[in-house]
Amino acid sequence: MNIGIVGLGLIGGSLGLDLRSLGHQILGVSRRSSTCQEALARGIVDDAGVNLSMLAAADVVFICTPLGAIIPTVEELIPHLSANTIVTDVGSVKTPIVKAAAAIWPNFVGGHPMAGTAESGLDAAISNLFAGNPYVLTPVETTPANAVKVVEEIVRSLACKFYLCSPENHDKAVAWISHLPVIVSAGLIDACMHETDPNVLELAQQLASSGFRDTSRVGGGNPELGVMMARYNKGELLRSLQQYRHRVDELIAHIEQSDWHALEEKLKHTQHSRPEFLASKNF
Amino acid sequence: MNIGIVGLGLIGGSLGLDLRSLGHQILGVSRRSSTCQEALARGIVDDAGVNLSMLAAADVVFICTPLGAIIPTVEELIPHLSANTIVTDVGSVKTPIVKAAAAIWPNFVGGHPMAGTAESGLDAAISNLFAGNPYVLTPVETTPANAVKVVEEIVRSLACKFYLCSPENHDKAVAWISHLPVIVSAGLIDACMHETDPNVLELAQQLASSGFRDTSRVGGGNPELGVMMARYNKGELLRSLQQYRHRVDELIAHIEQSDWHALEEKLKHTQHSRPEFLASKNF
Repeated sequence: MNIGIVGLGLIGGSLGLDLRSLGHQILGVSRRSSTCQEALARGIVDDAGVNLSMLAAADVVFICTPLGAIIPTVEELIPHLSANTIVTDVGSVKTPIVKAAAAIWPNFVGGHPMAGTAESGLDAAISNLFAGNPYVLTPVETTPANAVKVVEEIVRSLACKFYLCSPENHDKAVAWISHLPVIVSAGLIDACMHETDPNVLELAQQLASSGFRDTSRVGGGNPELGVMMARYNKGELLRSLQQYRHRVDELIAHIEQSDWHALEEKLKHTQHSRPEFLASKNF
Repeated sequence: MNIGIVGLGLIGGSLGLDLRSLGHQILGVSRRSSTCQEALARGIVDDAGVNLSMLAAADVVFICTPLGAIIPTVEELIPHLSANTIVTDVGSVKTPIVKAAAAIWPNFVGGHPMAGTAESGLDAAISNLFAGNPYVLTPVETTPANAVKVVEEIVRSLACKFYLCSPENHDKAVAWISHLPVIVSAGLIDACMHETDPNVLELAQQLASSGFRDTSRVGGGNPELGVMMARYNKGELLRSLQQYRHRVDELIAHIEQSDWHALEEKLKHTQHSRPEFLASKNF
């Protein structure tokens, strides 16, 4: 199959590596010709260029740009496509993307591979990034069944854990497990930095160990990515944050009232619940 | 030197391994004789038993029991000690422990090795657990200088990062980087479990990946340990929680008001601040 990839970063490049090794013809488009040359040199693509026009030959196109560039890219791409071309994306928020894209290109299937590394860019692209990790497709009523089938087959060939759901349920779910943790974790770092005694702050920095490292990791991540997910998933993120705030208030109340029994019951509940989120994951 | 260790779990057992390999004579006390036998079999101690009386020969005694048992253990131990014996502990909260222990045994030096693994118990004890990790001593005005010097020398021989501070500053610092993260992280798990749509909750559990795993880790840990640190460090934990709540409220306000510039500045600040807590750590 001729597969186009727009945006040759971590996700686009890793998709190219896997799909090309499965025998597909990979056409890559990047805004920078140096990235195109690197993708060719690493054998990530069969052909690469800076113009979307080269995707006229594609059967399926993966849009792997940052979230904010997905819809403008689809708009630019449309004049070059034949009517049968299927377009999919890898954006981490689905409702606004699918709504806008399906309105201008019915053969659009929203997608979200839940895979990544701490690195970004084409240099970070690796084989088997998606294997064992969740990959969600979010078709809507108007999405042609054949378009879903074609993208599903490609996605399943990556050996990922495949899921189908509505864009709305996707966005609710990722608000809980992906976007809320960023704010929770950023708030932790910010709170620590508000310690007013410089000796205590320095000591806290010296004594911080793996507990702080892990809890603060996603709050210390890419600021642009954090803002983008908050902009695009604002409603669901706020809904999860309000629930979170109530839960923290409840924990504070238990501690204020020295209600150690209630605190222990709550911590037993969280200890018991956490494994449900981690079962059969690729880590 | 004759070194006594009361409580042969992860910390006590790992201390025994390291200190015995440095040539000290290690006397271990555990409430369970099966643990004593295991410690002898693994070469963690030179002698072991269930009675504190065997520590009459010790120059220094490390109390490695859970936090709630430290003071009762010191009280039980005193009748068996000679006046010169130095007692130290490994509890994760220092102010109440040091206050109570120094009042009944002036030769007491509070201590806290910031090391651990996900496991607990003697089976989890390993060599070099402390190497490269912080180890804090918290002497007070009345602590004899010689007692601090002796414990400091032993602790430094573990190749740890050595720190001295007041019990109060220790408790403020660990509230930020060790105890606050537990509540922040438990609140995250608890909030997710309050999703009322079972389809969305199931999807969230399926899609949760490394971001959720890391942010939720310490909130899914040992409930008894969580309650103990909240009980013993209640004042400082509440102080850090109030600050945290303000910071989360500020982040919520930025999102509600779609103030993406302010959100991005805040996330740049947290991204920039986090490495200060992780510099030159053993992970």
